[in-house]
Order: sequence, then C-alpha cells, then structure tokens
Amino acid sequence: MKYGRTFNFSAGPAMMPEEVLEEIAAEVMNYRGSGMSVMEMSHRSKVYQEIIDQAEADLRSLMGIPENYKVLFIQGGGTVQFAMVAMNLLKDGVACYVETGAWSKKAIAEAKKFGDVKVVASSKDENFSYVPDCSDLDIPENCDYVYICENETINGTTFNKLPNAKGKVLISDQSSMFLSRPCNVSDYGLIWAGVQKNVGPAGMSVVIIREDLLNDNLAPTTPVYLDYKTHADSGSMYNTPNCWAIYCCGKVFAYLLKNGGLSAMEQRNIEKAAILYDYLDASKLFTATVRKEDRSLMNVPFVTPSAEQDADVVKATKTAGFDNLKGHKSVGGLRASIYNAMPKEGVEALVAFLKQYEAEHC
Amino acid sequence: MKYGRTFNFSAGPAMMPEEVLEEIAAEVMNYRGSGMSVMEMSHRSKVYQEIIDQAEADLRSLMGIPENYKVLFIQGGGTVQFAMVAMNLLKDGVACYVETGAWSKKAIAEAKKFGDVKVVASSKDENFSYVPDCSDLDIPENCDYVYICENETINGTTFNKLPNAKGKVLISDQSSMFLSRPCNVSDYGLIWAGVQKNVGPAGMSVVIIREDLLNDNLAPTTPVYLDYKTHADSGSMYNTPNCWAIYCCGKVFAYLLKNGGLSAMEQRNIEKAAILYDYLDASKLFTATVRKEDRSLMNVPFVTPSAEQDADVVKATKTAGFDNLKGHKSVGGLRASIYNAMPKEGVEALVAFLKQYEAEHC
Repeated sequence: MKYGRTFNFSAGPAMMPEEVLEEIAAEVMNYRGSGMSVMEMSHRSKVYQEIIDQAEADLRSLMGIPENYKVLFIQGGGTVQFAMVAMNLLKDGVACYVETGAWSKKAIAEAKKFGDVKVVASSKDENFSYVPDCSDLDIPENCDYVYICENETINGTTFNKLPNAKGKVLISDQSSMFLSRPCNVSDYGLIWAGVQKNVGPAGMSVVIIREDLLNDNLAPTTPVYLDYKTHADSGSMYNTPNCWAIYCCGKVFAYLLKNGGLSAMEQRNIEKAAILYDYLDASKLFTATVRKEDRSLMNVPFVTPSAEQDADVVKATKTAGFDNLKGHKSVGGLRASIYNAMPKEGVEALVAFLKQYEAEHC
Repeated sequence: MKYGRTFNFSAGPAMMPEEVLEEIAAEVMNYRGSGMSVMEMSHRSKVYQEIIDQAEADLRSLMGIPENYKVLFIQGGGTVQFAMVAMNLLKDGVACYVETGAWSKKAIAEAKKFGDVKVVASSKDENFSYVPDCSDLDIPENCDYVYICENETINGTTFNKLPNAKGKVLISDQSSMFLSRPCNVSDYGLIWAGVQKNVGPAGMSVVIIREDLLNDNLAPTTPVYLDYKTHADSGSMYNTPNCWAIYCCGKVFAYLLKNGGLSAMEQRNIEKAAILYDYLDASKLFTATVRKEDRSLMNVPFVTPSAEQDADVVKATKTAGFDNLKGHKSVGGLRASIYNAMPKEGVEALVAFLKQYEAEHC
C-alpha cells in the first residue's frame, strides 16, 4: 500500500478510504481557501454550515432517508446512546431487547435504569454464535420499542432478516455495519451508529430518528444533552458539535456516493467476506465460530483448536505486517474486521498468509 | 501568514498553533511508521496508549497537577459538564453558583434539575460587565460546592482572584482561559474545560478532579457515561474516546511546554491583550465593555456608539481578511478572541485596521 500503510483489521476505530485521508491531509492547513483548518472554524460560520449540511444531504441520499426522519450528530458513542434510547423512548411501558452479545447486553443494562426491560430473545445458550429466531417474539401490548444490535462486532453475527416487531417501534444499533449494505430506513423508528467503525474517526454517533418519536415529556432529571429534541431542534448545533468527525464522515459519505453507493458496497463486502469465510470453512486448522446464515460481512471471528495456537497466529500476523487480528478480550481467538475501507487485496493477503501458516503448522 | 492562513478571532473553535497543524498534516496518512492514521487506530493499541499517556503526562507537567487529581478526557463539551458536575457532586446539600454571564446561567439551569441551587453572587445588574465581589459570599453550611465560570467567553470577564469558598469545594469552568496562565490546581476540587477554545478541535472536555470527590453513591438513573468514576477508573477508556482530539490536544500541550509553559503564555497574553485594550481605551469610536480589573485576556468585547456602526465595522474587518469579529448574538457589538495561538502580529494588524477605520469614520 502507498505511504507504507498497513492492512489494519481493527474492529474500530478502523481503516478509512485512502483517497479520503489524502483529501483531509491536503486541507489541514487551509480548508479550500477559507484561511483556516476545519479544526479552527467557528461552528456558527457559513463555511462550516456548508460542511455539515453537505454531510447530512449526502447521508440522506446514500441511505434514502425519508423526510420525516431527522439526522443527528451526537457526541459520546454507544455508551451515550444506550442511555439516550431508554431515556427518550422508554415511557410507562416495557422495552423489549434481543440479546445477541456484548453490545446488546450493555444496552440492556443501561436501559434497566430507566424502566421495565424484557429480553425477548437471546443466543446466550450458544455463546452468541447465532441470531435467534425473531419471527414470533412475545411482545407485550405495552411495549415501547424492540431493540436490536444489528451486527455484534465482538461475536460476528448479523441480522439478515429484521425481527417481526409486531407493529412496535424497531430500534437498531448499526454501529459495525452502518453503510455496509442498503437499508430501508422506514423499517425502523430509530437507527444509531457510532461512526468509528465503518465511517470515520471516533467521537460521534449518527442518529436517524422518526420525527414523531421525539418526546416532549422526558423525566425532569434528563440532561439537556441527552434529549434527542435538543439536537433535532438545532440541526445538531445546540452546542459545539464534533466538527472534525462530521467533516471526515461527510467526506466518506461523498466517497461512497461516488463509488456506487450502498448496493455497490454490499456487493464488494459479500465478495470480500466470501474470500475469508470460504477459506476458513475449508481449513483444517481454523474454524469460523458463527452459524453460516448469521455471519457478519464486517467482523469475522475464528479460532484454532487452542488458545495457545490462537496467540501464536496473532503474533505471526503482526510480524507479517497485519494489524489488530486479536479477538476481543471477552471471547479470545482471532477476529478480522473487514469494513468498507478494507481493500479486497487486504483480505486476499490475509488468506494467503493464513494458508501458508496452516501449511507450515499442520 | 503562511499557507494563505487568516487571523481568525473566533471565540471557539479557534486558531491552533501553525507548527502543531503542520505536524498533524504530515502524520495524517501514516502516524510515525505505524502504518495508519491516528483516526484509524484501535484505542486499545499500544501505539494509541502511548499517545494518550503522553498527552496526560504533558498536561500534568504543564499545570503541575498533584497526584491526587485525576485527568479525564470526556466527550460532549460544556453542555455535558453542566449536568455531570451536578449529577456527581450535588448531594443532599446546596450548590452555590456565581452568575457572571451566559455560561454560568446555563450551568445553573442544568444543575437545578438535580438538587438545590443558590446563586450567591451575580453581575446581572450591569449586564455581566464585571466580576462580583466574592470575598465574603453567603455560603450555607450544607453547601456541596461553589461553582464559577472563570472566564466568560461571551461577556469577556475573568476572575483575577478566586472566590473565598469558605472551605467548600471550588469548581471552575476554565474553558475559554484554560492554559492561558499558571493555575494552582490545589485551589480547586474540580476544573473542567472544553478544549475547542484554547487547545484543540471541538468534541471533548478535559476534567481535572480531586480523587476524593469521585462519588460511589450516584442516583440510580445516572447514565454510566455521566459518572466521573467511569472515566477515572478506566483511564478515560471505558469506551472509545475522542482519539483524534486527545492526539491534537497532546500536541498542543507539548508545544506549550516547549515554548516556556504557562508563565510564558501568561506574559505573552498580557502583552497581546494590552495592545488591544490600550487602543480601545484611547479610541473615540470604540469602547471596551468590561471593567478594567475584570477584563479577560482571551475574549475582548467592544462596541461603537450604535449597532449599525458595529455591523459596518464587522463587515469591514471581514473584507480586510480578519475573521469572526462579530460579538455573540446575545450581546451584539464586536469581540476579538485572542487565545494562546493568536500571534501578536494578528492583534497588531487588527489594531492598525481599527485605527484606520476610526480615522476614516470620525
């Protein structure tokens, strides 16, 4: 790769498109004749307003976001969204959560602070290696929303079919699969995504919320920052936003539009993931840990027969110039995160390396 | 200036040192042979851990932060800190606030959601153009803390003498004067600062908190992100932090250390501000709006006799290549923000311009 760059398989923050980084590097000292870096711009200036407006317009175009949905840029990542979802949308009823791994568990724990929570399905029985059947969930009449983590980064599962929410509001954490495939926004009441996995630098979530879900009757102890209406009513400018992340993400949105949009990304992601999964399924040393029908195109966890060998492979990949292949500390093994910005050549090079390792060690 | 850069008098986000921006630009594609941009790095990687550790160490060195204080990097800016301060430190007692302008008013409004709040001094009677006498405040015995906004960005006032908190915990919002002069951290229980004014890009606050103030008994409805202990116990790494802002701020901390530290900054800031205030005090057209003894070295508001003429001057500065001199919408007039990174030449050029404007219009 150019600039001595490495194939970085980090689960997030993660690779960004090289072309986008080149544009950013060229604009650090002086953004397009403005006389200043984007980092130095008043967020109330005309030049910055154009940046945020364009970012939102490009995202709307990419995802086909209907007009009755607001797009919000909010600081704080998933930990803040876990709380905001419940503080804003869990009223006097019950929040129904599907438990598919570490991130839905964190969302459940946080929501319990704010009201009744029911786990309506779980894949805990098989170490979160599949997505439970959600075609006929036991959803009570007073359910305020049904919540899923649509792609579990750590466990490597993806919902390939959305739950039947039985007319209730569906909420999805799309962090680690955001913009990886087309998305029918109207299927959801709210989508949120930490941008540091498949889009840009850490420090922000994108929230897409149906306008009628903005709530005027929050608990009086709700911080103004944690009220979705605060951000919706001010175009994400109630306070100084993470201007830099919005700028960088905007560049990625424009790059995706220029390169065929989400259908093209999905096609590319299917091809890339197949290279890796096909090898793992044929391998005598490595095993992909997730049921075939629920496998993520973004996060591919796999193991050898022992923790010792796992560690040896991780070490060998590092020596060979691949980065961040160690599985999450809570599950062990290996994990290759292959988001939109990971080139096909990166996956091919990894598979070639794993093949050689297998040949040498089996 | 180099790169066609302009003198940017924005109140924040604001100018950063040119040398720091040059380093950042050079490292966007590949940070020091790591093979990746800082925006792409796993926050759990060794290379990133070194960046955050160095940033904290340099800040500790700059400010002489005692060992019994934690340094936290938290997303969300002032709006989040207004809530966190009260949610973490307002217990069964009373929080005492000094009201000196727009930002202390916002802090007061947010704190009222979480307990009893008492305004113990105010400069509202003269449109926040001075700092009230805080040598003998009426602080009740059950006071949990005394809170000040040490530099009011919009109104242009600074506390040049800290309040007598009568043994209670002093909390300071230092956002718009952070690192502009030496600071005796031991005088405070907690200092926080949004970094987008005098340090780096928007999207983060630095919080310096005395360890014994970390609270184990928060209300059960406190989001985990808004608990200072969450961040203190995890080295600001409970979740993915704003990695980019920490990296950029770290560079500014190193730059300040290299250039004489906070004493040198204070000397430079006194000289820079004097150039502007001396001219304003001698001018027949312009008037500085703040009492001499309470004037900020960072934010210098001034007016002409009429709103029309104010607008005309703002327009003329813009044409002449100066940026962001319009006063905040809530107070009008003009405002020159001259943080650490504003070169002396910028202030000299502004004064030369204002002199010429005055000569032509009076």
